[in-house]
Amino acid sequence: MGRRIYLEDLPLEEASARWWRALAEAGLDAPFPAEWVPLEAALGRVTAEPIWARLSVPPYAAAAMDGFALRSADTVGATETRPRTLVVQPEGGEGAACYVDTGDPLPEWADAVVPIEQVQFDAEVPEEATRITLYQPVAPWTHVRPVAEDIAAGEWVLPANHRLRPVDLGVIAACGYAAVPVRRQPRVAILPTGTELIPPEAAAARGVRPGEIVEFNSLVLAAQVRERGGLPTRFPIIPDDPDRLREAVREAARAHDLVLINAGSSAGREDFTARTIAALGVVHVHGVAVRPGHPVVLGLLRVDGRAVPAVGVPGFPVSAALTGEIFVAPLLARWLGVPPPRRPRLEATLTRKILSPLGEEEWVRVTVGRVGGRYVAAPLPRGAGVLSSLVRADGILRIPRFVEGYDQGQTVVVELYTDPEVIEGTIVAIGSHDLALDLLAQFLAERHPGRRLRSAHAGSLGGLLALRRGECHLAGTHLLDPESGEYNLPYIRRYLAGVPVRVITLANREQGLIVAPGNPKGIRDLTDLARPEVRFVNRQRGAGTRMLLDFHLGRLGIDPARIRGYEREELTHLAVAAAVASGRADVGLGIRAAAAALGLDFIPLAMERYDLVIPEAFYGEPWLQPLLELLHDPRFRAAVAALPGYAVEAMGNEVARLS
Amino acid sequence: MGRRIYLEDLPLEEASARWWRALAEAGLDAPFPAEWVPLEAALGRVTAEPIWARLSVPPYAAAAMDGFALRSADTVGATETRPRTLVVQPEGGEGAACYVDTGDPLPEWADAVVPIEQVQFDAEVPEEATRITLYQPVAPWTHVRPVAEDIAAGEWVLPANHRLRPVDLGVIAACGYAAVPVRRQPRVAILPTGTELIPPEAAAARGVRPGEIVEFNSLVLAAQVRERGGLPTRFPIIPDDPDRLREAVREAARAHDLVLINAGSSAGREDFTARTIAALGVVHVHGVAVRPGHPVVLGLLRVDGRAVPAVGVPGFPVSAALTGEIFVAPLLARWLGVPPPRRPRLEATLTRKILSPLGEEEWVRVTVGRVGGRYVAAPLPRGAGVLSSLVRADGILRIPRFVEGYDQGQTVVVELYTDPEVIEGTIVAIGSHDLALDLLAQFLAERHPGRRLRSAHAGSLGGLLALRRGECHLAGTHLLDPESGEYNLPYIRRYLAGVPVRVITLANREQGLIVAPGNPKGIRDLTDLARPEVRFVNRQRGAGTRMLLDFHLGRLGIDPARIRGYEREELTHLAVAAAVASGRADVGLGIRAAAAALGLDFIPLAMERYDLVIPEAFYGEPWLQPLLELLHDPRFRAAVAALPGYAVEAMGNEVARLS
Repeated sequence: MGRRIYLEDLPLEEASARWWRALAEAGLDAPFPAEWVPLEAALGRVTAEPIWARLSVPPYAAAAMDGFALRSADTVGATETRPRTLVVQPEGGEGAACYVDTGDPLPEWADAVVPIEQVQFDAEVPEEATRITLYQPVAPWTHVRPVAEDIAAGEWVLPANHRLRPVDLGVIAACGYAAVPVRRQPRVAILPTGTELIPPEAAAARGVRPGEIVEFNSLVLAAQVRERGGLPTRFPIIPDDPDRLREAVREAARAHDLVLINAGSSAGREDFTARTIAALGVVHVHGVAVRPGHPVVLGLLRVDGRAVPAVGVPGFPVSAALTGEIFVAPLLARWLGVPPPRRPRLEATLTRKILSPLGEEEWVRVTVGRVGGRYVAAPLPRGAGVLSSLVRADGILRIPRFVEGYDQGQTVVVELYTDPEVIEGTIVAIGSHDLALDLLAQFLAERHPGRRLRSAHAGSLGGLLALRRGECHLAGTHLLDPESGEYNLPYIRRYLAGVPVRVITLANREQGLIVAPGNPKGIRDLTDLARPEVRFVNRQRGAGTRMLLDFHLGRLGIDPARIRGYEREELTHLAVAAAVASGRADVGLGIRAAAAALGLDFIPLAMERYDLVIPEAFYGEPWLQPLLELLHDPRFRAAVAALPGYAVEAMGNEVARLS
Repeated sequence: MGRRIYLEDLPLEEASARWWRALAEAGLDAPFPAEWVPLEAALGRVTAEPIWARLSVPPYAAAAMDGFALRSADTVGATETRPRTLVVQPEGGEGAACYVDTGDPLPEWADAVVPIEQVQFDAEVPEEATRITLYQPVAPWTHVRPVAEDIAAGEWVLPANHRLRPVDLGVIAACGYAAVPVRRQPRVAILPTGTELIPPEAAAARGVRPGEIVEFNSLVLAAQVRERGGLPTRFPIIPDDPDRLREAVREAARAHDLVLINAGSSAGREDFTARTIAALGVVHVHGVAVRPGHPVVLGLLRVDGRAVPAVGVPGFPVSAALTGEIFVAPLLARWLGVPPPRRPRLEATLTRKILSPLGEEEWVRVTVGRVGGRYVAAPLPRGAGVLSSLVRADGILRIPRFVEGYDQGQTVVVELYTDPEVIEGTIVAIGSHDLALDLLAQFLAERHPGRRLRSAHAGSLGGLLALRRGECHLAGTHLLDPESGEYNLPYIRRYLAGVPVRVITLANREQGLIVAPGNPKGIRDLTDLARPEVRFVNRQRGAGTRMLLDFHLGRLGIDPARIRGYEREELTHLAVAAAVASGRADVGLGIRAAAAALGLDFIPLAMERYDLVIPEAFYGEPWLQPLLELLHDPRFRAAVAALPGYAVEAMGNEVARLS
């Protein structure tokens, strides 16, 4: 048993090729054999063999119309002047006829059906007729659906490697089957390892203590496996103990086709995985030049004489999810005999420049929207630990290994996670983060399934600039002009000159100082920020709240250099509140609702107006109306009014039309 | 309790509107409430409420690099010439430092991390250092991932009405949940009714007797329900007995949200369903002007004071499947809070003229392929009972109520059932039916998942004409020229003049007379077809086999008018064999393999050459190579050679290049 460990960063194609070669040598790269499952349980399964009809469809000759079955020979010579009369007698014989409904079997003695409209009969309803009269002859096989007209016994009905749809199940049943040979589902073991991990149930019950990490990668990996047609088994968390890990991997390999070892989060843990795989078999790849995800380990275990592939999945959640996509999904597809998953693609304009390291292929998550007839792709934060990027991503942009990145405005190809239909239905907002805007998105999603408001937080000024570049449908903004004391309009006039827009108020909201419960540092107003023992947490440049702060500091003559933490920037009100709640800061500036959400105290400073800026080009569009109508909806207004510090009297007011 | 029964054909929109109105009045048109399910079981479920983060992500400040945690204040003033030395002591204190891996929590006393590359330390590995030396100061919060940097507790994470993907489960777990509120799954009862119905298990075990019908609609409807997120219950078959049906419907309504009554196949059975629904509630729609499917019944039951929608699903399988799509799927979508299913659409050129009745909306099933840069849509047989059209359909073409149809060559919009990816990978063959061609399709599907050979049976001549019109990639043909006695080339020269093509032999195959086992009518050769007691079954005009017959009849001087059954046409060899096997005909002309498939006797007549005709424009294309390579593949050749009457010596030979 070899023990090669590579500690290199192989290019993705080379890593894949090496692994597939190893799988092929072990005979593990072929589709799985058949198992027979009842048709009732076969939806979505993949045929392992071609399906040949065992029975013909229809299985017997049948009437194709409601009418009378008869022998065509008995009708020869019938005319208007010399009609033929036949006697209803189901047992047949010369001159016999018999009522049949569409689909009824043709009696053995008959060879044609005459529709009820073409005969006279001696009763109210044809079912009760005893005699029928014909005024023209009937050709043989008229209105008869012959045996096997649709499918002949012995005919080929469905190919192997076909994913069964609802109608397929019906047709297979009609062809004489009650069960169907489908590919066995790959069994995949998922082993989370790491002493720092706690299960989601524990986190939900009692929170997360410093140093603990919620173990959710196994949930994601298991769902990916299930989505691709495999059967996942989630193992309990295995602490950092080489012997226990090796035993667990050995046990998993005995009952599974593939073992995924998810290596906690701390550095060097992947080596630990690699050593375990090497102890039980061979490591073929250790480290792939793909970002995020490069510490992946690919190997083959050999347990009880049987080779079982094993993947060391990196611990960072974005890397783990990508490893599932890049290495696990294609293997499951191969085993099921279906093509590797391929996502729909579209061309989009990139909203920001992206730089990428030359030596690695990088997979950048992006949100995608359709704005003014073109698709725009906005890169999300690229850290391997940024969970929110996972849920927010509409797709991914691959930057090949020898490309340094892409420019803003460049056309790129995005592979979509999100249904293209949903992207068409997305209203894209960029600008300042606001809780009423989140509520607006929720109401829209609830009232109008399929319609989506997606907000990117770029600050008030960032939103106006994105609107100018045609990257969004609307911008949310709360910018106080220090000279005029007026909100928003001076900035819109300056940054959106020449772009006709409407300015509609979403809400007024209360800004103030967020402090710990009971205000232990005794903060009363902004002058306290300059006290040396007070640690402040700031918002980023371009944020309306930051500009509000700077405006007031200027008026009060306070030098920002005297404020401890002025350089520490957060992107949202809630992040500021969280910094205070965790004790990392004593005070921050933000909205009352954020303070209330985390149970913090609040010292009011000012009411400010939060407006939506909407280009005239979009204002009248039908897809925007559900959103605009919500601004006048009593339930939505009540929900916003219930947010602490929000006033909704001005909601929906048109503040200005600018051009 | 009202008892209105409508016996009309309402336009589809009006029928839908009327039913939705009734559902709304009964309060049945709103999304279902939440049930909490463990995250492990929540894949594909739909959120019933917005998800708010209960925990922040990350839940504590953490190191963003491998390095040393320290207090930034201790590093103020450090330079190259006046370095600072800190002492490793995890408990903190002035001048303290502590080694941290990426992701480790930042010690309470620290406020920054210095990466290992930026310090000197007194050990081989940083983990063992006791002192570190810095040559520049470290700013507060450097390389620290603050609490809630990614997601703040209280922040909105996912909207309601969102179908959960694998990554969503991970993020929800990280935010402090072990379960998630999702929409309850609609429970749908499916009741097959009809004394003539037998379950698929019975058909598989002992075949189908005349008058019996295999009950598979409930399989299709159940799978449709499952695919759309509902929970189906298939009831046992209920015989034609009003009391038993009423009791079964009442019982089903008690435990389900929706009751589907599938009304066997014979005419008038839908009235029976309507009467049952009326007896237990109200029929709102009986008959919709949509084809196939018009006898649908839509009503509301009222059982134990609770309103439960009921649908009378027509018995014909195509109608039943369409009813599921048109009336059941949108209701399930509404209850789950997701948009009604919408299929991808594409524009295609219609290969044949379609006429449609003016008063009805018609849904025509089509196959779709991409040939020479455009999509072509070929209509499938339109009967409500044609099962094969269900499995073969790639999509459907809707012909609105007041449109008479579409012309050949017209551009139409097709709603796709088949993944657009699969359509891109489809090689379209039109022409004569051949078993080796079916095998070729199977080998292609098995060897190259995602690549598909789709054959339409239009006869040899039909294939050449389709090739000329650019509707297929290749045509299979076996046409004997009566003048020259030569196969295929004279016809290709005549019908494909100006289209450069290659002619490649697929196989030679034996044609002859197919007769019942033991040859009870004592048929020896074609002259016996003119015997009055011999019933013949023919192939359609344009079929190579038909032309072979007519050629030989001409040589023998036999008048077709003397052949009983000459006018009875079947589309494939197997259909001819099935007609003989069922006793409806005594003899037909066809290939030996078809006779052998159904255990029939065979009287040889001639060997004939079956060629593939491939335009030069496609011959060199990469997507065609897997198919061409199979012609030289020993396993494929052996499989064809094993078909009775097939000779493969000439397989893959280039017979000619014509232009």
